[in-house]
Amino acid sequence: MKYASLLDVIREKNPLIHNITNYVTVNDCANAILAIGGSPVMADDINEVEDIVSLSSALIINIGTLNQRTIDSMIKAGKKANELKKPVVLDPVGAGASTLRNNAVKEILSQVKIDVLRGNLSEISFIAGLRASTRGVDSAVEDEKNNPVDVGKIVAKKYSCIVGITGKEDIITDGVNVVKIYNGNKFLSKVTGTGCMASALVASFCGVTEDYFLATVVGIATMGIAGDIAFERAGKVGTGSFHVGIIDAISKMDSNVFLERVKLDEVKY
Amino acid sequence: MKYASLLDVIREKNPLIHNITNYVTVNDCANAILAIGGSPVMADDINEVEDIVSLSSALIINIGTLNQRTIDSMIKAGKKANELKKPVVLDPVGAGASTLRNNAVKEILSQVKIDVLRGNLSEISFIAGLRASTRGVDSAVEDEKNNPVDVGKIVAKKYSCIVGITGKEDIITDGVNVVKIYNGNKFLSKVTGTGCMASALVASFCGVTEDYFLATVVGIATMGIAGDIAFERAGKVGTGSFHVGIIDAISKMDSNVFLERVKLDEVKY
Amino acid sequence: MKYASLLDVIREKNPLIHNITNYVTVNDCANAILAIGGSPVMADDINEVEDIVSLSSALIINIGTLNQRTIDSMIKAGKKANELKKPVVLDPVGAGASTLRNNAVKEILSQVKIDVLRGNLSEISFIAGLRASTRGVDSAVEDEKNNPVDVGKIVAKKYSCIVGITGKEDIITDGVNVVKIYNGNKFLSKVTGTGCMASALVASFCGVTEDYFLATVVGIATMGIAGDIAFERAGKVGTGSFHVGIIDAISKMDSNVFLERVKLDEVKY
Repeated sequence: MKYASLLDVIREKNPLIHNITNYVTVNDCANAILAIGGSPVMADDINEVEDIVSLSSALIINIGTLNQRTIDSMIKAGKKANELKKPVVLDPVGAGASTLRNNAVKEILSQVKIDVLRGNLSEISFIAGLRASTRGVDSAVEDEKNNPVDVGKIVAKKYSCIVGITGKEDIITDGVNVVKIYNGNKFLSKVTGTGCMASALVASFCGVTEDYFLATVVGIATMGIAGDIAFERAGKVGTGSFHVGIIDAISKMDSNVFLERVKLDEVKY
Repeated sequence: MKYASLLDVIREKNPLIHNITNYVTVNDCANAILAIGGSPVMADDINEVEDIVSLSSALIINIGTLNQRTIDSMIKAGKKANELKKPVVLDPVGAGASTLRNNAVKEILSQVKIDVLRGNLSEISFIAGLRASTRGVDSAVEDEKNNPVDVGKIVAKKYSCIVGITGKEDIITDGVNVVKIYNGNKFLSKVTGTGCMASALVASFCGVTEDYFLATVVGIATMGIAGDIAFERAGKVGTGSFHVGIIDAISKMDSNVFLERVKLDEVKY
Repeated sequence: MKYASLLDVIREKNPLIHNITNYVTVNDCANAILAIGGSPVMADDINEVEDIVSLSSALIINIGTLNQRTIDSMIKAGKKANELKKPVVLDPVGAGASTLRNNAVKEILSQVKIDVLRGNLSEISFIAGLRASTRGVDSAVEDEKNNPVDVGKIVAKKYSCIVGITGKEDIITDGVNVVKIYNGNKFLSKVTGTGCMASALVASFCGVTEDYFLATVVGIATMGIAGDIAFERAGKVGTGSFHVGIIDAISKMDSNVFLERVKLDEVKY
């Protein structure tokens, strides 16, 4: 299976992944990248992001706790990554929830060519221009009326990028092809940062292949499978142990575990 | 028991809680809020705090790693919460330890109506205007000469708010009524952020009731009970496992566990 | 053994340790300091760092996620610590990886008397003026050609400080005497922040002795021993549990565990 082999490739290549991210889940993102075989570097000062992008294999921009200082850094880093033809992943955390966030997302999308957008249905619905009622940084119930495949395709075509929407089912699309992933469980929404970690994993895989669709599927599926394994081990204990179990499972993930566990459909529409 | 039912209410209502907090314990605060049934959003840019407060059911201001940028955001957010009649909880981390912190606390208290103040005895003693010798962000031994009930009442009356002082015994007062809580153990002071998490839990409960005295008692008692459970399971293993166990215990807390475990006195003075 | 007794001293003295550090691993640093018996305070605003240094027994400057605002605070805090004759530990995270980092390290070293420098071989090689090819914040393979003892001695003499280089073997030197530590294992590089925690432990021990060479040996050895214990318990489970196990092991460390586990050589060159 073409997806699974990427898990062995990443442990061999150990790509350096540049993160401009939030201060809530940054430790988990760093540990998820290390656990899957990458090497994280977190750097957000405008005077060093170009240097760090130049050393790195991929850039992940996560707007979880954005401020004016870091928005400028995100754009500068993104432009440099574009110039150097390095992949850029955007996690538009909380898009739709504030004017600052909405403007930041628009600004980033207008100035930086994004290769992968990973968000929840509320966030991606906002970017699609649909009425979205983002509830803080979590997906809002009302937005579940939107069909994620439709929303994903609109955005993928509009920005010529891969879109990954995580939720009960995960949807990955390039605007034409669609993959659905059925791994993962409700507990993943009871620990902060599981979305951020999914994006960090996607960026990690983008660092070792030019097929960003493949990278997005594998990154999101890895997170879902890790959630399944962690839930089996720690679901009864509580969300603290489940949280630890996610990193454990990522660190032990390889092509065999992936193949045995992954539940996905390649769908043509 | 009137306290316990709040634990079932919060899981049903899933309140959005706006946190302007420090970068040391922010992940624990978010996970504690999720574990108890709330939904956390961390946002501190001055250009978005009003939007986020408007979406939220309560605001928690924690000055753990304050700087001039975030102090301005705290005040703006607090004023907006006041205007919208949403509850505001203040955790004056390290009050007494630096002029910057002292001035920030005074400024916040003069410009924002605070509904609940949650701190240790050193911090609340400083706010009471008593000689306080805060030792960094932890309570100083010398301040243990102050009687927490007296200190709490002074501050509760001065600012017309609920005061929660955590320590060997926890004291909650509105200036007249006093509740003492005997849950919790020494290990709670061996993990950073247990005070911050207590405040985050208080804010979460303030998001689902207008009785902030009740919310403060339940929030602080929940933290103490979680500490008791975590200590039983992991005290012998070490503070890392104890830390994980706290979140586990919060995530499994309900009215039954609370009723079975809580040790409190309602005291009239 | 002269090293081991420091573990009992620190639990008795409970030194306050001032951290100006990064937002990635700050929670682990705080918990490591608490676990070994110190009391951490994280404060980086330029208007309070002098107050906080004055209360503290040691200062640790970690440039992991530096920005212009915090660089200024680091220098101001460092100068105050020098004035008050309090020990200053510098962790030059990622030195060599960007012009901003390189200039910041040079600026700090020119304006602040550093007592202990703790880094990996790439970072210390950069400071030694050797060709260093830092790969983000992790040590680069190419730099392993440099002999850590030689590199350490150059830097120790140049800046009249203790140098601790962590890696497969750890090297501590004052420019003449050298201690080699053989504790620790590969998993330590699979969790973010183990280097930062080592520096935080070194700073903690510097807070209770004027023999900073001794403090550096004990701090780095404590981290290595904790890694050994955590690996025995959780190596097969994954890096999440290993991470928790490190803090567990630090919290249970005492002179007996240290003596039983430590593997070090005092070498004369």
